[in-house]
Amino acid sequence: MSLLVVGSVALDSVETPFGKRDDVLGGSATYFAAAASLLTKVSVVGVVGEDFPLADLDFLRQRGVELDGLSSVRGKTFRWRGRYGFDLNAPETLDTQLNVFEHFSPRLGPSARKAERIFLGNIDPELQMRVLDQAERPRLVCADTMNYWISSRRAQLLELLPRVDVLMVNDGEVRQLAGESNVVKAAHAAQRLGAKAVVVKRGEYGALLVTGEHSFFAPAFPLADVRDPTGAGDTFAGGFLGLLDRLDAGDAVALRQATVMGCTIASFTVEQFSLDRLRELDLTQVRQRFAAFRQLVHFDELPDHVA
Amino acid sequence: MSLLVVGSVALDSVETPFGKRDDVLGGSATYFAAAASLLTKVSVVGVVGEDFPLADLDFLRQRGVELDGLSSVRGKTFRWRGRYGFDLNAPETLDTQLNVFEHFSPRLGPSARKAERIFLGNIDPELQMRVLDQAERPRLVCADTMNYWISSRRAQLLELLPRVDVLMVNDGEVRQLAGESNVVKAAHAAQRLGAKAVVVKRGEYGALLVTGEHSFFAPAFPLADVRDPTGAGDTFAGGFLGLLDRLDAGDAVALRQATVMGCTIASFTVEQFSLDRLRELDLTQVRQRFAAFRQLVHFDELPDHVA
Repeated sequence: MSLLVVGSVALDSVETPFGKRDDVLGGSATYFAAAASLLTKVSVVGVVGEDFPLADLDFLRQRGVELDGLSSVRGKTFRWRGRYGFDLNAPETLDTQLNVFEHFSPRLGPSARKAERIFLGNIDPELQMRVLDQAERPRLVCADTMNYWISSRRAQLLELLPRVDVLMVNDGEVRQLAGESNVVKAAHAAQRLGAKAVVVKRGEYGALLVTGEHSFFAPAFPLADVRDPTGAGDTFAGGFLGLLDRLDAGDAVALRQATVMGCTIASFTVEQFSLDRLRELDLTQVRQRFAAFRQLVHFDELPDHVA
Repeated sequence: MSLLVVGSVALDSVETPFGKRDDVLGGSATYFAAAASLLTKVSVVGVVGEDFPLADLDFLRQRGVELDGLSSVRGKTFRWRGRYGFDLNAPETLDTQLNVFEHFSPRLGPSARKAERIFLGNIDPELQMRVLDQAERPRLVCADTMNYWISSRRAQLLELLPRVDVLMVNDGEVRQLAGESNVVKAAHAAQRLGAKAVVVKRGEYGALLVTGEHSFFAPAFPLADVRDPTGAGDTFAGGFLGLLDRLDAGDAVALRQATVMGCTIASFTVEQFSLDRLRELDLTQVRQRFAAFRQLVHFDELPDHVA
């Protein structure tokens, strides 16, 4: 089994009602790898600048994450600054500095090319395709995208979709992509555009998996302490693909378990700022919360006499 | 078994992106009774004006709903006018005419006083208490409320809460009541204020049941066609209490099933305007969708080797 993620490695400055952090570890590939590495072997392809504190990634190396594809180039690292209000669902972006990420052109080394499963983080769909062009024969491709690419790179995105097994987007993105306000209809439309399955991430409300005509819903774990939602979506993806790779499967049963695993690891991420909670997380804790998810949604059949 | 609902019987004018209806049947007690009567015997206490088309309630009578407590008085019926945008979660209220509802003072007849389960629709908490004062010995009391009462009748509401088994509110209401933005913490705070259990209705995202330290989550059924969300919350309550009354139970297992039954019947309500879908609904269809809910949330345990 082998899993490749292509995406950002960043320095984030985040403010929530529960605290503030400056220039802390962030980025979609970082969060993804921290989550997925609890379950399987992950390789990262990305770029950082000279200012990046590479030692901050030591905990990933210790979990077996392959960082050879992370190139360090002249210039500054991608920086994002955002603020969340009491409605923790959507941040206000205060500043984005692409820096070295602006000219990022993913190059896959020999082992990355052989990855069986690939997560295409939220980058230009043209670059996402370039990743797939370099991959030898991935068994499962999962792609994230965002409003900016849906409007400005629509043609490229539509070219990408038939090569995608699981499109992973939020409510607003799937609606925008499909031009359809109903999320279920929008997910079906995205399937007609080529994506084999669609996962709609709904933040604090959970995630909806649509495969063919079937739907599966996993709630977000109800938490009494949410400090920083940053990275929840990318750790969802990391848990999702990490489990599929660990199980070496992509059938309906595995996709449902993977969706819950995504929600499980994401629920830890938001308990602390940056990757602080993921750093110390282990698979025993993850298994416990996965089991708690089963309790959270379990209910008995109706007795026959209610008819 | 016997179930009493006290609330509004109204004429609604509703506009959604999918159509428009004027002066159609509405009101919390009406929606509640239409849902609950699929499962058990319901009595309604409410008031309408001279202009109310009583024949519109014939389908409820045919389902065994007891309408003797619905008084018809001089004046006009409560009217509500609202509009929903593509985000169907919250309507914009365009006009509210309380009319005869303004001086509504619930009077329970001999059989209503003996009701074993009571739903206090969204009215002044002072009136909700007056209902409980007339009830002989209800086994389960469930109350709805809203932002207006939480701010303007806080003292009365706090007096009511210790007499409530299940407080049924939405996200914003439980947050406002508790002065706490985290929904789980807010539900626990509502329990400390006296409510034994709390159901947080989250519209298109489902419902969260908090009993003691345990949580249960039921998603909204993913529907491709939602025409009019009006009455979803009240039919949720009708399905919830209707099933508890039918099962003659209020334990944790039954509360979970009741939450799903609430989501099940609410999911039919929103498929058509007004009570149109509820009018033709039968228990066979309800059982089928309840079973589909089990499919919607089912996932397998992790295999032991993922450790």
